[in-house]
Amino acid sequence: MSRIEAPRDEDSGDVTGGVPGLPPHPHHPPHAELIERLRDGLPAEAVLIDPDVTAAYANDMASFCPAGAPAAVVLPRTVEQVQHVMRTATALRVPVVPQGARTGLSGGANATDGCIALSLTKMDRILEISPVDRIAVVEPGVVNAVLSRAVGEYGLAYPPDPSSWETCTIGGNIGTASGGLCCVKYGVTAEYVLGLDVVLADGRLLSTGRRTAKGVAGYDLTRLFVGSEGSLGVVVGATLALKPRPPRQLVLAAEFASAAAACDAVCRIMAGGHVPSLLELMDRTTVKAVNDLTRMGLPESTEALLLAAFDTPDAATDLAAVGALCEAAGATQVVPAEDSAESELLLQARRSALVALEAVKGTTMIDDVCVPRSRLGGLLEGVERIADKHRLTIGVCAHAGDGNTHPTVCFDAADPDESARARASFDEIMALGLDLGGTITGEHGVGVLKKEWLARELGAVGVEMQRRIKEVFDPLGLLNPGKLF
Amino acid sequence: MSRIEAPRDEDSGDVTGGVPGLPPHPHHPPHAELIERLRDGLPAEAVLIDPDVTAAYANDMASFCPAGAPAAVVLPRTVEQVQHVMRTATALRVPVVPQGARTGLSGGANATDGCIALSLTKMDRILEISPVDRIAVVEPGVVNAVLSRAVGEYGLAYPPDPSSWETCTIGGNIGTASGGLCCVKYGVTAEYVLGLDVVLADGRLLSTGRRTAKGVAGYDLTRLFVGSEGSLGVVVGATLALKPRPPRQLVLAAEFASAAAACDAVCRIMAGGHVPSLLELMDRTTVKAVNDLTRMGLPESTEALLLAAFDTPDAATDLAAVGALCEAAGATQVVPAEDSAESELLLQARRSALVALEAVKGTTMIDDVCVPRSRLGGLLEGVERIADKHRLTIGVCAHAGDGNTHPTVCFDAADPDESARARASFDEIMALGLDLGGTITGEHGVGVLKKEWLARELGAVGVEMQRRIKEVFDPLGLLNPGKLF
Repeated sequence: MSRIEAPRDEDSGDVTGGVPGLPPHPHHPPHAELIERLRDGLPAEAVLIDPDVTAAYANDMASFCPAGAPAAVVLPRTVEQVQHVMRTATALRVPVVPQGARTGLSGGANATDGCIALSLTKMDRILEISPVDRIAVVEPGVVNAVLSRAVGEYGLAYPPDPSSWETCTIGGNIGTASGGLCCVKYGVTAEYVLGLDVVLADGRLLSTGRRTAKGVAGYDLTRLFVGSEGSLGVVVGATLALKPRPPRQLVLAAEFASAAAACDAVCRIMAGGHVPSLLELMDRTTVKAVNDLTRMGLPESTEALLLAAFDTPDAATDLAAVGALCEAAGATQVVPAEDSAESELLLQARRSALVALEAVKGTTMIDDVCVPRSRLGGLLEGVERIADKHRLTIGVCAHAGDGNTHPTVCFDAADPDESARARASFDEIMALGLDLGGTITGEHGVGVLKKEWLARELGAVGVEMQRRIKEVFDPLGLLNPGKLF
Repeated sequence: MSRIEAPRDEDSGDVTGGVPGLPPHPHHPPHAELIERLRDGLPAEAVLIDPDVTAAYANDMASFCPAGAPAAVVLPRTVEQVQHVMRTATALRVPVVPQGARTGLSGGANATDGCIALSLTKMDRILEISPVDRIAVVEPGVVNAVLSRAVGEYGLAYPPDPSSWETCTIGGNIGTASGGLCCVKYGVTAEYVLGLDVVLADGRLLSTGRRTAKGVAGYDLTRLFVGSEGSLGVVVGATLALKPRPPRQLVLAAEFASAAAACDAVCRIMAGGHVPSLLELMDRTTVKAVNDLTRMGLPESTEALLLAAFDTPDAATDLAAVGALCEAAGATQVVPAEDSAESELLLQARRSALVALEAVKGTTMIDDVCVPRSRLGGLLEGVERIADKHRLTIGVCAHAGDGNTHPTVCFDAADPDESARARASFDEIMALGLDLGGTITGEHGVGVLKKEWLARELGAVGVEMQRRIKEVFDPLGLLNPGKLF
C-alpha cells in the first residue's frame, strides 16, 4: 500500500509534513524533562524515543494529512500508567495524541511535532464476557476480530465490523465511531458502547454510563466520547453490548446496466420493509479493479453490482424476494449464492475493493460521504460528473443500505497536477454530499482530512458549542490538537 | 389517580410545595414586564397567566416532588415563537421549564416559582415520513401513539412505547429518554433520535445530527440532549429513525413458585440467545392488585408471573423454546397464547399494573432501578426484605429482559409515618440497585425525585463534568433549574 503525505498545511503551524519511508524530522528534539518524568511512572520499555522507532507512530492510513514527529511514544499497560502520562503532559503542557492501531482514514491519529504518541495497543485484555448480561468489558487495545472471536465462543456477536477489523482496536473504533458492512442491520460502534472509563486531560479518571441494558442517569457522556477522536479524554476501558450470534448470512449478487437502476433497487428493498444484514454496491470501476487484482472473474459488462445478504432463519426466501425487487428495478442478472462458501466469495470481492482501487494508480483518497439513501442515485451521478470534469478515475463502493458511499479517487501521487485535481474532486464530493442532505463522514471521522469541512456541516452555532465542550474536558488544548476543528 | 406533593424540600430553596386540588400560591406575582414582552412575540391565546389555569401546568405525575407556581404558561406554535420566549427569558433572567404532556414520573417537568412553563404541546405536526429513508421528521408535541399510528400506515414502526404512549409527547420522550415494553428487543428513545433542532437558552437555534443512517461529523450533541430533561435547550424538532413494522407478537405466560425461579428463567432465556420482543415480570403483589382492579382472574397462587413475547416469523416455535426454559427453571404452569387476542389480554394485565398498585393504598412511589439482568433475582429479594423491614406493600413489575424494575411502594399519604417509611424504602431500593451494579433510573429520569442520588451514581468527577456541560449550554442557569443536580 502506498499513500502520500501532503505538503505542510499552511493553516496548521503546529504540524510538519513527513516523507514516506523516512522518519519525520523532529523540529523539537525530545525534551529531557518530559522523558525523565514519563519514565518515573512507566517501565523503561514503555517509553520509546528513538526517532527511527517513533516515526512509525506518526501516521494513520489517510492520504493528504500532515503529521509531525512525536517526542516520545508511550505504551502503557495500566490505567494508572495512562493517568501518569496525562498528569505529566498537563504539568509540562505537552500535547498527547491517543492512538489505536492507526488504521484510520482521516489522519485522526497523526502525531503533532513534539507530542506524546499515546498508544493503547498494549492494554489489550478482555476482562469479562457475560452471556446473561450480553456484555463484554474490555481494555481499549483489544483487536476487533479478537473480541469477535472470543464472544463467538459464547454464542455472541460484537457486530461492528470496519474493514480493518482484523487489525483495528476497540479503542480506535470508539474514538472514530467506526461502522462497517453489517451496520445496515446492526448499527455502528456507538450503539454498542454502554459505558467507558476515561482518563481526562488532567489525569483524573471518569467513569461514564453503565453495565445495564438501560439507564438515563444524567447526560449521556458515553456517547460524547464515542467519535471524539481522542480529543476529550483517553478511553482506558469499555463496557460493550453484545448480540446473540446470528445465523451465517446468505448473499445475492445482482448486476445492473446503470448505477441509477442499482440505486433504485436499494430504495425498493428498503421501502419494502426488508432488513438485509448487508447491502453493498460496487460501481463498474470498482468491479474492474477487483478483477484486475484478484482475477475473481466478476462480470465486467456490469455498470453496478449490488450485494444483498440476509442472516434470517429463512434467508433463501428473503433473497428471493429481494432478487425479485432487483429484477423489477432492471437488474440484468440476479445470482443468489447457494451456500455460505459462495457467499463468502462474493464478500471477498467487496472486501478487496479499496485495496484493488489503490492498485489502479498507486494512491487513493477515500471519501466517506453518507446521504439519505433516497439520494444515493444523485450522489453516484454527481461523482461521475466530478470524475469526468477532473479527468480522474473515481471508483465508488458503498454501504448502499446506509447511503454511506466511499468514492475513491485513484491518482498518481508523483503527478502534481493529477494530485491537485484529486484533492479538488474530493472536496467537490463532500460539497455534493452536503447538498443532498448528507454528511461529510458516515464512519471514518473528521481528523485532519475534513476539519475545514466540519464547520460547513455543523454551522457556526454548532462549531461554537462543540468547541466549548472541548474546553470543558481539555482546557489546555493538549488532547489531539489540530483534529476535528 | 391520586399522588401527593411532598412538603417543601429543605435542600431546594427555590421551589415551593403545592397542595393537590388547589392552585399553588404564587410567591412571585406575574411580572408585568415579562408578560408584556412575551406577548410581543406570541399570540394572545398562547400566553396564559390566570393562576387557576397555570396551576394545571405545575406538575408532572411524580409523587414527593415539590412544584412552584409558574408566572406564565406559554404555548408556542413555531420555532420563532420558542426563540422569542427564550430571548425574553434570558433578557429578564426568568427560569424556563420546558414541558410535554407532563406524564413523567420524576418531577422533571415541575414548575418553579415565577418560571415560564414552556409547553410544546401545540407544536404537534408530523412534517415528513419517508419509507425509503425510514425516518420521520416531527415537532416535539406529537403524541407518541399518533406518530406510531401514522408511520404504521406506511408499514413502519416507531418502537419506543412508554406506558403513557397514548398521551405522552415525542418531545417529552426525548427529554426523559423514555423506554417502554419493547425495549428489550428494540431499544430506547435515544436509539431512534438521529437529529434535533434545539433552541438554546439565549434563543439561538442549534441543529444537531443528521437525517442519514450513519454520521460521525463532530461530537454527538444529539445524544447529549436526549435525556437532558430540558436543562440544556428546548427541542423544537426531531428527525427520528423508524423500523419496518414487525409481525404482531405472540405472548406466553409462565407462573413460578418463587420470584427467584422467575429471574432464573429470565437469565436462561437471555443466555440462550433468544430475542423476545417483550419479557416482563409481575410479582405476587402486582398480580393480586391487577386482579382486584380488573377482575381479570390471573392465578393468585403464583409468586411471580413472567410474560414473554416474540414478533418473529415463527413466534410459536420461539414461544415453545422459551416455555421449555421456563419449565427447566421451575415454572409451575406455562400458557402460550394461541392468538393475538389472547396475547393482548395478557399485555393488558401488565399495562394495568401501575394503576392497580395505586389502588392498593391510594398513593404510590414508583421506582425505576435497572440492574444487570444477572442480578435481577438479588434485586427482587432485596426489595422484599426492604418491604418487610418497613412494614410496607411494595409491588414489583419489571421489564425483566432489561433488568429494569419498577418497585412500587403503596402507601396511605394521609399517614405521615407510613409516608416517611415509603420515602425511606424508596431510597433503600436505589442504594440496593447501585450495590448490585445498577443505575438509579433505567427510563424515568432524575428530575427532582432522584437528584440527590444522581451524585452517588456519577461520583464527584462525573457530576463536575456534567455541571460544566450544563454551563456551556445554559450559563445563566435558566433552563429547568433545580432538576438533575
